[in-house]
Amino acid sequence: MSYFKFEEYDIHYEVYGMGQPLLFLNGIMMSCNSWKSFENEISRDNQLILIDLLDQGKSSKAKSEYTQDIQVEIVKGLLDELKIKKLSIMGTSYGGEVALQFVHKYQSMVEKLVLFNTVAKTNAWLKEIGDAWNLASNNPEAYYCTTIPVIYSPQFYERKKEWMKNRKEVLVNNVFSSKEFMDSMIRLTNSASEYDIIDKLSDINIPTLVIGSEQDHITPIDEQKLIVDKMTNAQLIMLPQTGHASFYERPIIFLSILKGFINLEKLDYMV
Amino acid sequence: MSYFKFEEYDIHYEVYGMGQPLLFLNGIMMSCNSWKSFENEISRDNQLILIDLLDQGKSSKAKSEYTQDIQVEIVKGLLDELKIKKLSIMGTSYGGEVALQFVHKYQSMVEKLVLFNTVAKTNAWLKEIGDAWNLASNNPEAYYCTTIPVIYSPQFYERKKEWMKNRKEVLVNNVFSSKEFMDSMIRLTNSASEYDIIDKLSDINIPTLVIGSEQDHITPIDEQKLIVDKMTNAQLIMLPQTGHASFYERPIIFLSILKGFINLEKLDYMV
Amino acid sequence: MSYFKFEEYDIHYEVYGMGQPLLFLNGIMMSCNSWKSFENEISRDNQLILIDLLDQGKSSKAKSEYTQDIQVEIVKGLLDELKIKKLSIMGTSYGGEVALQFVHKYQSMVEKLVLFNTVAKTNAWLKEIGDAWNLASNNPEAYYCTTIPVIYSPQFYERKKEWMKNRKEVLVNNVFSSKEFMDSMIRLTNSASEYDIIDKLSDINIPTLVIGSEQDHITPIDEQKLIVDKMTNAQLIMLPQTGHASFYERPIIFLSILKGFINLEKLDYMV
Amino acid sequence: MSYFKFEEYDIHYEVYGMGQPLLFLNGIMMSCNSWKSFENEISRDNQLILIDLLDQGKSSKAKSEYTQDIQVEIVKGLLDELKIKKLSIMGTSYGGEVALQFVHKYQSMVEKLVLFNTVAKTNAWLKEIGDAWNLASNNPEAYYCTTIPVIYSPQFYERKKEWMKNRKEVLVNNVFSSKEFMDSMIRLTNSASEYDIIDKLSDINIPTLVIGSEQDHITPIDEQKLIVDKMTNAQLIMLPQTGHASFYERPIIFLSILKGFINLEKLDYMV
Repeated sequence: MSYFKFEEYDIHYEVYGMGQPLLFLNGIMMSCNSWKSFENEISRDNQLILIDLLDQGKSSKAKSEYTQDIQVEIVKGLLDELKIKKLSIMGTSYGGEVALQFVHKYQSMVEKLVLFNTVAKTNAWLKEIGDAWNLASNNPEAYYCTTIPVIYSPQFYERKKEWMKNRKEVLVNNVFSSKEFMDSMIRLTNSASEYDIIDKLSDINIPTLVIGSEQDHITPIDEQKLIVDKMTNAQLIMLPQTGHASFYERPIIFLSILKGFINLEKLDYMV
Repeated sequence: MSYFKFEEYDIHYEVYGMGQPLLFLNGIMMSCNSWKSFENEISRDNQLILIDLLDQGKSSKAKSEYTQDIQVEIVKGLLDELKIKKLSIMGTSYGGEVALQFVHKYQSMVEKLVLFNTVAKTNAWLKEIGDAWNLASNNPEAYYCTTIPVIYSPQFYERKKEWMKNRKEVLVNNVFSSKEFMDSMIRLTNSASEYDIIDKLSDINIPTLVIGSEQDHITPIDEQKLIVDKMTNAQLIMLPQTGHASFYERPIIFLSILKGFINLEKLDYMV
Repeated sequence: MSYFKFEEYDIHYEVYGMGQPLLFLNGIMMSCNSWKSFENEISRDNQLILIDLLDQGKSSKAKSEYTQDIQVEIVKGLLDELKIKKLSIMGTSYGGEVALQFVHKYQSMVEKLVLFNTVAKTNAWLKEIGDAWNLASNNPEAYYCTTIPVIYSPQFYERKKEWMKNRKEVLVNNVFSSKEFMDSMIRLTNSASEYDIIDKLSDINIPTLVIGSEQDHITPIDEQKLIVDKMTNAQLIMLPQTGHASFYERPIIFLSILKGFINLEKLDYMV
Repeated sequence: MSYFKFEEYDIHYEVYGMGQPLLFLNGIMMSCNSWKSFENEISRDNQLILIDLLDQGKSSKAKSEYTQDIQVEIVKGLLDELKIKKLSIMGTSYGGEVALQFVHKYQSMVEKLVLFNTVAKTNAWLKEIGDAWNLASNNPEAYYCTTIPVIYSPQFYERKKEWMKNRKEVLVNNVFSSKEFMDSMIRLTNSASEYDIIDKLSDINIPTLVIGSEQDHITPIDEQKLIVDKMTNAQLIMLPQTGHASFYERPIIFLSILKGFINLEKLDYMV
């Protein structure tokens, strides 16, 4: 189990395999653990780097509120620690926001970028959805019902009714009932509340795939269209009948697009 | 101000104008008042009938939990009271659910049907979103943030930032802070929790328009596609860049489709 | 049967009913006759004005090639003839293009505008589709197969197989086999080949509804999105599982939206 | 240059690289040559097998009309020739139709399946579009304008105006002016005219990705939704602002999805 020191914090990370490095940046409620089932497949061809951002998983809890800027510097700190000069990044949701800000600041370090279910701005709508999350944080079941259904598609939820029921029990009883966890969730949510990279997107010229889901009720597909319109070198893929946690609902498509793109040798086709 | 007696309850209704009667069935958080600005336009050509369902607006609060069956009978009661034998119905969201159940039971009384942002079933996903609403009901701000943003499109929310801010103040301080109102909201939400008319849709053979919104994050467009697929005589219209409360975000389109359709004389075109 | 003189040409028109005037501008292959089944419904509340543009229906055949400018002036000529100072316009496809150019030039004469399946520009793609039509014009069956299927949705075509078969016979044997008709079709097609009003759309501030179809394979929905984005006072409606000739595939929706919108008294709603 | 004998015909094929075999089945107007720029990327990890089906590229011209059944048997013949027992198949358009029929007949030979812009049936609509192609076949420019624009998105066509102009010259002067080529195109088109595998799709239980394009005006996205609904083990991906020849308009996405999926080791994820 590996950690490195960032300022006063211990940041947990995991490295698997060899080859071109590929960093995963987690969604807000996720951790390195969330990628367990994908480790083998990714690390067969790439060096997979997982990280718990500040307030995620096994990394330190923050001592006070912060913005995503610190997450960007933590990512930079990890790459320095690992002496990695150039890599590709996959970010989903919150992790995609950190990825975009990292790429904008350290563009020369990034080979390729893959963004799943990411926005370019925490708009008024998303801000108040975040407020709803925070206001429900003192009641585990309320927190579950406020945050979990909306990150899945109704179709998936209906299909996996039993599985979701078990998951609810685990989350309500073991996770959302921890004051420490909930405090970190509140800080993470707040750290994105002023996020807005729209005007800087046109500066980013890294080969990028942007993936959105038809049934994404947190970061709707129009947000990903906006990202692709503004970026210089980005293309859009849409997943029908899929929700916000697309890597979860469509693991095979997630892995296919990601592995395929990251390992392409040539990107300049005539058309 | 008119009332009629349904069992132990006083049910409030309003009637405007003359002509072919057209009944509006409200969404869950709405009341007769919500249609104020539409009264003139509708009542120029039709007899507009508004009703506060049980636990809505000026109608009685329920004495215990119930299902939407009672709302269906309340609608029937009102029509008997008004001696109306045949009419058209517009239902939105919760009101659309009541409309579908009414039409299924009293098919011969319905001339035409218009459904905005309605589902055919409270599936597992929607059920838990309802639970989130109920669990937030003891905190006015939590209730606002849990229920309000999701009924608008992000685009509308961003465009009407100031207006939404005022609305938030009113709702948080004057509406969601009333224990009586919140209790009625909980009962209304619960009354839909077992709703499922999917298998009966094919029995309904009333000329119907079904309108869905691209950015409906409560009753996503796939639900309206399902209704149209199963019904015998229904057609679908989609409103891009519009949220769940489409009559609010697109009043002109709402009125156009509704008035136009209700007042068509002939419906049998060659194709 | 009414005609008026425009330059050297006889222009055929029809007027039905009384009330606020509403002018229909035909798609390229259409004529006043195409609206037969809608005359009663529209003329109950409005004065319906139909016109055969130059090279359409009973109007004169042109003596040489022209641009859509002449169609715009013909429309103006008709309104002068009828002493109409202000009216609403519905244009579909080619007729929508003429409508947009008319509105831009004579904005003060237009009350409301409804555009079905219209583009703002004949782009390179549409230009060559027009070329395909012209190049097939010497063979009636080729012309049928090149122009007709693409103006319907595959779903409609499959549903109306028998009806389409009869239509094919009529069109191939009685219409497309006429050299005179085909020459007029070629001129009409060519008259739109330089059409481009994109940069002028923002000047138009007339209450407008723009309707597109999900299965429009001639003027795809993205074109109508563009129009709505650029115009000042336009809103978009989308018809799922519908093709280019939406008035044909969805007569009830066509009439509902059109009649409803044209006859709204008030257009300024708070939101 | 390799050939094998199928009945009286010489069938041309090409094999590149080593590893798990992956067969490409061409769209109707394509040949082995169409994949030139993808050969290196695919053959780095897989044995890429290209084939000119009967009447395509360097393979024999057919002596009479046929159905796609013969193409299925030609594919089987090639695999026998190469002593390949199990492989993955990518088919696009016509090639996807052959792929589906091959998979249905020789299911045990297929590891994974990737279908780009494919239909399950030549419906009445597509049938007459094919007729339009055939009827334009005696005039090279007419053939170009009838067949080429519709296989691209309007956006691509506008973006690549110059490139398309050059392509037009080459195709009109060197390709569509050859009677031999046009006769083979007619036979290929006719060979699909009775194609209908809808009722057999549910028998196919091979891991499958189905990719459709938002601006596909030959095989619209609804056709791919149908395939995914009926097949047992298929998932859908949608490419916004992309036309029928998606491998051409989106080579990077084409390669990413294809290479990623074909080379996944594990396909059974919990969800």
